[in-house]
Amino acid sequence: MEKFELDTGSFVPLYQQLKEFIIENIDKNVWKPGDKIYSENQLFEKFDVSRNTAKKAIEDLVQEGILYRIQGKGTFVSYPKIEQSLSAFYSFSQVLRDKGMHPKDVVLDVKVIEATHKVAKALNLDKGEEVVHLQRLRYANEEPIILESSYLPKSIISDVVKLESVGETPLYDILRKEFNVFVNSAKETFEPILIREEEQGHLEVSIGSPALLLERIAYDQKKQPVEFCKSIVRGDRCKFYTELV
Amino acid sequence: MEKFELDTGSFVPLYQQLKEFIIENIDKNVWKPGDKIYSENQLFEKFDVSRNTAKKAIEDLVQEGILYRIQGKGTFVSYPKIEQSLSAFYSFSQVLRDKGMHPKDVVLDVKVIEATHKVAKALNLDKGEEVVHLQRLRYANEEPIILESSYLPKSIISDVVKLESVGETPLYDILRKEFNVFVNSAKETFEPILIREEEQGHLEVSIGSPALLLERIAYDQKKQPVEFCKSIVRGDRCKFYTELV
Repeated sequence: MEKFELDTGSFVPLYQQLKEFIIENIDKNVWKPGDKIYSENQLFEKFDVSRNTAKKAIEDLVQEGILYRIQGKGTFVSYPKIEQSLSAFYSFSQVLRDKGMHPKDVVLDVKVIEATHKVAKALNLDKGEEVVHLQRLRYANEEPIILESSYLPKSIISDVVKLESVGETPLYDILRKEFNVFVNSAKETFEPILIREEEQGHLEVSIGSPALLLERIAYDQKKQPVEFCKSIVRGDRCKFYTELV
Repeated sequence: MEKFELDTGSFVPLYQQLKEFIIENIDKNVWKPGDKIYSENQLFEKFDVSRNTAKKAIEDLVQEGILYRIQGKGTFVSYPKIEQSLSAFYSFSQVLRDKGMHPKDVVLDVKVIEATHKVAKALNLDKGEEVVHLQRLRYANEEPIILESSYLPKSIISDVVKLESVGETPLYDILRKEFNVFVNSAKETFEPILIREEEQGHLEVSIGSPALLLERIAYDQKKQPVEFCKSIVRGDRCKFYTELV
């Protein structure tokens, strides 16, 4: 580890310099994901900064997701976020496998319900028409990452039971093989939200944590909407990227 | 306005039905952006629901950004979020003009600083090398929406003063015309974050509000990084979309 020397003559505030020092050590792999780092008290003693400076640096890094706290245990270096492309149809399971991680999907709900106003609008149906609701919790290495609700017009799903194998087979493969529905385009929207009570239990993060709400309408070869999908993605574990030319 | 009738025999919880009723009226333009809607007490009396049901419905809709509260004034219908494409180089000002909104950029800071570890890494520089920091606050119709920090290698910016016209001319146009730098590709990452104290004052939203952190590295025709840009985008006013084929 490099020696940390505060530059008290610098315009850069001391807590920023301390943050910078911690970020650099993490980036250079001196401190690795899961490693316990100094407590505020230790930073305060070790680097001869004020208690407030140490506190502000640690708080910022926790808020930025670079560190995480476990109640009563200490502060640790976060694991890198799972990066997913926005530019292509991605399979979350495939993204994980490519990174050497283990995907798992747990089906929480499969049932026929009446379309709400929003679902009906997305799927070009009348409010109250029958849709299949498929809710899944998607894991990476036994950690819940995405809570996903798909709504499909009942008219294209002749046998709801066939969707239950979605834990093993990607949904769009089931649609193709079992129901002759070919998804070939989609519109997705992305917006940041806060985790609410109803998601907290599934995703195992606290209420008010940052998350991404991803809403997708998928269309078949005739441009008919065949799926409206609402995903809530943990912000502490995922980021998205795109390349522009 | 349609009459609201709770279906007490339904499996759909009452607060969900009430939410649905409000969402539908907003979507059908019965209630318009900026309109004041019933208070919890009025909902409670008018629709014969419990006070808790009314409270939960309103709270959810505020959290989802469909309604907003003004302290001491009441609850109002939110304005639609500004939608920006993720699939193309977009000009925020142009997006606004296309929607009939008025863009305004305020330059908060233009100065030469030493690159932090992160900035240096993004721009392929050594830590401590000189970069130009350009910080802007971007408005839509007099409302602050995006807080944007660009870092550019000092070596390509022969005259920092020329960046000050960025309020009137897009940054990439200045780079092209004044410095012969042509941006033609970029990598962007997106992650949800919470607004912190230092952003709160600029963006005029409360600490802990949802926001999107957008980080871009822009490259010139020789694939050299010429800009590292960090944007903090208000989640209550913006959403992003992409179309996949």
